[in-house]
Amino acid sequence: MWTEQDNCLQCTFKFKDFSEAFAFMTRVALIAEKMDHHPDWSNVYNTVHVKLNTHSAGGVVTEKDRKLAAAIDRLKA
Amino acid sequence: MWTEQDNCLQCTFKFKDFSEAFAFMTRVALIAEKMDHHPDWSNVYNTVHVKLNTHSAGGVVTEKDRKLAAAIDRLKA
Amino acid sequence: MWTEQDNCLQCTFKFKDFSEAFAFMTRVALIAEKMDHHPDWSNVYNTVHVKLNTHSAGGVVTEKDRKLAAAIDRLKA
Amino acid sequence: MWTEQDNCLQCTFKFKDFSEAFAFMTRVALIAEKMDHHPDWSNVYNTVHVKLNTHSAGGVVTEKDRKLAAAIDRLKA
Repeated sequence: MWTEQDNCLQCTFKFKDFSEAFAFMTRVALIAEKMDHHPDWSNVYNTVHVKLNTHSAGGVVTEKDRKLAAAIDRLKA
Repeated sequence: MWTEQDNCLQCTFKFKDFSEAFAFMTRVALIAEKMDHHPDWSNVYNTVHVKLNTHSAGGVVTEKDRKLAAAIDRLKA
Repeated sequence: MWTEQDNCLQCTFKFKDFSEAFAFMTRVALIAEKMDHHPDWSNVYNTVHVKLNTHSAGGVVTEKDRKLAAAIDRLKA
Repeated sequence: MWTEQDNCLQCTFKFKDFSEAFAFMTRVALIAEKMDHHPDWSNVYNTVHVKLNTHSAGGVVTEKDRKLAAAIDRLKA
């Protein structure tokens, strides 16, 4: 569930353990690098928090962020 | 399905795409490094082929290989 | 340069780009999983911020954190 | 040093240990996914062998392979 807060699209993802969380991060990294649009994200053990906004647009949410969020959501399908 | 062939435990894993295959490889890497026992493996797009044997035991299948294979199988659970 | 702040060992690592930063994260992930001791870390593009403390010890810096920090530092050698 | 053999661009990369080898593979994965052109590669501990050709062109070496090889080489710079 993405929410828009502090000019960021934000979502927290929970996994079984660190291994599953880091595998998810690896897949997000592949998507981000392909889109040339990278998250501001953090991880503690099985939890990954992702924040998206567009630095080059002055730090607001743009279509690039919505596209990256949608691509991340497709990983769970 | 692991088979024993040419003194190796061998298994081929198929995924939806490269991203899913490489995420699996990342998880296997975490397990292998933790066990200090590394696979001889190859990847083409969505396919990962894993071969396990124990070099230090003269290149035969040992308990270390069966333990690593079992840990890899638990990733799919 | 690790500093101790807010009951955490903290360090910021800078890289050339996202690819180099994420490769570093992958190596830290391998170490963390091996030590069964995981960082609280965040990444934005080429920057990785790592915070270490020991939850099971009540959220203070312990020998486990110093050992993980030292192992991370050895990656740069 | 890439060589052309069996209709593939081929190169073997050696690293200090598995961690360094797998970090390299992660960076190659990011490039490959971005280019939509994936290697046929294998890894044993500190060694990564990369083979490139273009399946869609009938399994021969094309400009796509030369471009991917050049991008991989830039990682070492």
